[in-house]
Amino acid sequence: MSADGTAGVEPFDAVQVISIKRDGGAVPDDALRWMVDAYTRGYVADAQMSAFTMAVLLNGMTRDEIRVMTDAMIASGERMSFASLGKATVDKHSTGGVGDKITLPLAPLVASFGVAVPQLSGRGLGHTGGTLDKLESIPGWRAALSNDEMFAQLGGVGAVICAAGSGLAPADKKLYALRDVTGTVEAIPLIASSIMSKKIAEGTGALVLDVKFGSGAFMKDVDKARELARTMVALGTDSGVATTALLTDMNTPLGLTIGNANEVRESVEVLAGGGPADVVELTVALAREMLTLAGHPDADVEQALQDGRAMDAWREMIRAQDGDPDAALPTPRETHTVTASADGVVTRMEALPFGIAAWRLGAGRARAQDPVIHAAGIDLHVKPGDTVRAGQPLFTLLADDESRFARGLDALEGAWEVGAQAPASAPLVLERITA
Amino acid sequence: MSADGTAGVEPFDAVQVISIKRDGGAVPDDALRWMVDAYTRGYVADAQMSAFTMAVLLNGMTRDEIRVMTDAMIASGERMSFASLGKATVDKHSTGGVGDKITLPLAPLVASFGVAVPQLSGRGLGHTGGTLDKLESIPGWRAALSNDEMFAQLGGVGAVICAAGSGLAPADKKLYALRDVTGTVEAIPLIASSIMSKKIAEGTGALVLDVKFGSGAFMKDVDKARELARTMVALGTDSGVATTALLTDMNTPLGLTIGNANEVRESVEVLAGGGPADVVELTVALAREMLTLAGHPDADVEQALQDGRAMDAWREMIRAQDGDPDAALPTPRETHTVTASADGVVTRMEALPFGIAAWRLGAGRARAQDPVIHAAGIDLHVKPGDTVRAGQPLFTLLADDESRFARGLDALEGAWEVGAQAPASAPLVLERITA
Repeated sequence: MSADGTAGVEPFDAVQVISIKRDGGAVPDDALRWMVDAYTRGYVADAQMSAFTMAVLLNGMTRDEIRVMTDAMIASGERMSFASLGKATVDKHSTGGVGDKITLPLAPLVASFGVAVPQLSGRGLGHTGGTLDKLESIPGWRAALSNDEMFAQLGGVGAVICAAGSGLAPADKKLYALRDVTGTVEAIPLIASSIMSKKIAEGTGALVLDVKFGSGAFMKDVDKARELARTMVALGTDSGVATTALLTDMNTPLGLTIGNANEVRESVEVLAGGGPADVVELTVALAREMLTLAGHPDADVEQALQDGRAMDAWREMIRAQDGDPDAALPTPRETHTVTASADGVVTRMEALPFGIAAWRLGAGRARAQDPVIHAAGIDLHVKPGDTVRAGQPLFTLLADDESRFARGLDALEGAWEVGAQAPASAPLVLERITA
Repeated sequence: MSADGTAGVEPFDAVQVISIKRDGGAVPDDALRWMVDAYTRGYVADAQMSAFTMAVLLNGMTRDEIRVMTDAMIASGERMSFASLGKATVDKHSTGGVGDKITLPLAPLVASFGVAVPQLSGRGLGHTGGTLDKLESIPGWRAALSNDEMFAQLGGVGAVICAAGSGLAPADKKLYALRDVTGTVEAIPLIASSIMSKKIAEGTGALVLDVKFGSGAFMKDVDKARELARTMVALGTDSGVATTALLTDMNTPLGLTIGNANEVRESVEVLAGGGPADVVELTVALAREMLTLAGHPDADVEQALQDGRAMDAWREMIRAQDGDPDAALPTPRETHTVTASADGVVTRMEALPFGIAAWRLGAGRARAQDPVIHAAGIDLHVKPGDTVRAGQPLFTLLADDESRFARGLDALEGAWEVGAQAPASAPLVLERITA
């Protein structure tokens, strides 16, 4: 109805829908579906949707509203189904962190148990790296697959890491771009529906969420991260996707590498049965969750890392996407190593500044259209809790141009510390959240 | 600073400013001034400003922020000064209601005491009538004056009711149009800064606010109306304009006419020493406030209505703007009278539906570019508290086309009542609010 009571062509009015949320109410299902659809069509203007998203951020959404919002975003595009594969499918999503290369060893590891892992991934922006950027360090590897290629690969090796097609939840793409410039990215109901609409539209049967908290995470605060995890687990469950979440610590970079090529190298170490303890721990924990949801609760994932089955799946997965698993990875033209000035113990290495430094060194991008430098990043030689001697290397900056080191080092000012006393150890996996 | 820490051309970032307000903080002066200026320039997008206004609506603004926001809107355009007139200036602003023709008798009444009354007015939209639309019922009268014409008229008769030039607070014009379509009109800090920026830019020395509450008012709720009144009185005072406010009841239409030509006719009755008691009461109360601020606390305003001084000022004011105060006003082609079905007392006549009905009859407009029908509207024959006999006329709908009556009557369904018991009487002027 328009303001003077006459019926228009559209069944709802954007100002009315905005006002319901502004005044703390729950938007009726049909009005909420209309709002998302009319925005995607361009009938509801950016300015109206951004006022709505700010009202959602400040006044929240009910569990029902979040489900309907997510449904509406899924309905804006195509919906895939893996039913014809004849095997269980399970996907993982991480809210993103510094040095988070877990998808790389995890997908082939889980696939080695006969499960299909359709890992539709993105590129990095800002201090958070992107899985596709990392894999593109491998000569020949390509991220873009047709639906037929993806299905064939899921039916074969089982693991696919590729770019999400633009056909999935286009409403989310438009809405995310708007939230990004209007200070409304932080709305938990919208984060949840953004992530989950793509995963549900993708057609996975089950989903494990790695929801990170701490300095290098999107959610700094553990309570907010827990709220997001619970919201997404409820949403997946309500939408018929078996979903669990792990709440994991992102105060310190994961592993010893931050970048692209160096993160691939570290992932291959894990697949070869080695690698840093934290990367192995999180890979194993997430693999267990995924395999439990996929009907393999007793799968011996550590054994699959030791006996080469996971590595075989990796090599096959890379080859299936035209990559050469034996090719040399790019190396940096310039390096700069920072050493300890005194004996002591590493008390702190803060994820966010290390992520920003790697970004400034060229490993990340500021705008979606920018390229990344695959060899750029940071190699860590120690982690918090390690004892060091004066002069011992702490970390090495990697770049193609030494002029980048100054701004990288600026970002690291105060980001790490060598002191007298070992830091209290915190668990990497804080909680498991189930429906 | 942009996200990666590099300095851009602009000193602030819209997302940062939005985020401060989103998180409940006070935006620093320079950032707030930049936000308004950059929005006016088009650098800050509509979608960013609407997210900001929603955050203001839900998280509020400090008294300082409201002052700075208002300053920034004033700075977006020209600023007038009446200092050269050599007499006191005082203006009145009403937040708008149904049958609110008070400006028409009030401006000449106050001017008849040698005070300049620069009444820059607007047109009606929706159920609220516009002072300029009403005066345009008078053959020949024109709303658009040059600044020179306005100054000459203020120096002479003293009263001017004319269209506000587009040069005053253009930022407000742009911002109001945005708020109108994004559900953010209701933000008290923004209502206050919108109204006051134009009044302060106009250069009046003093200002009396008629802040209405009730069914036909913009603020239905008396507490919200009081908050708006206090906010505006504080803002005027902080900006060097002596400001007081009356909090007045708008649950029932003012006077016995709702429309345009019929409201002019009623205003002339008041200027002739007659007219409905409520219109006279409010005109006198506001005139006393204005004259007190203008240095005439003992002016006998009732006498000026009785002895023809106010009427003389009215006739001179209308003539100065090319209107003929003796010309016949337009009359409707069609009328439809509603009568009482039984004996009783009028217990209720609700302002909002009467305003909507008059709008539907053609007295108002749905879009700014639409014309109004000057003869259309509603004449009331009784008011709440009046006793009536079965068959006695209650009110008459006025239109140029009888096909409009059905929708007018629809709006009035349940809007009035004849019952057994007289309603409790409520004061028209509830409170006086001063700095």
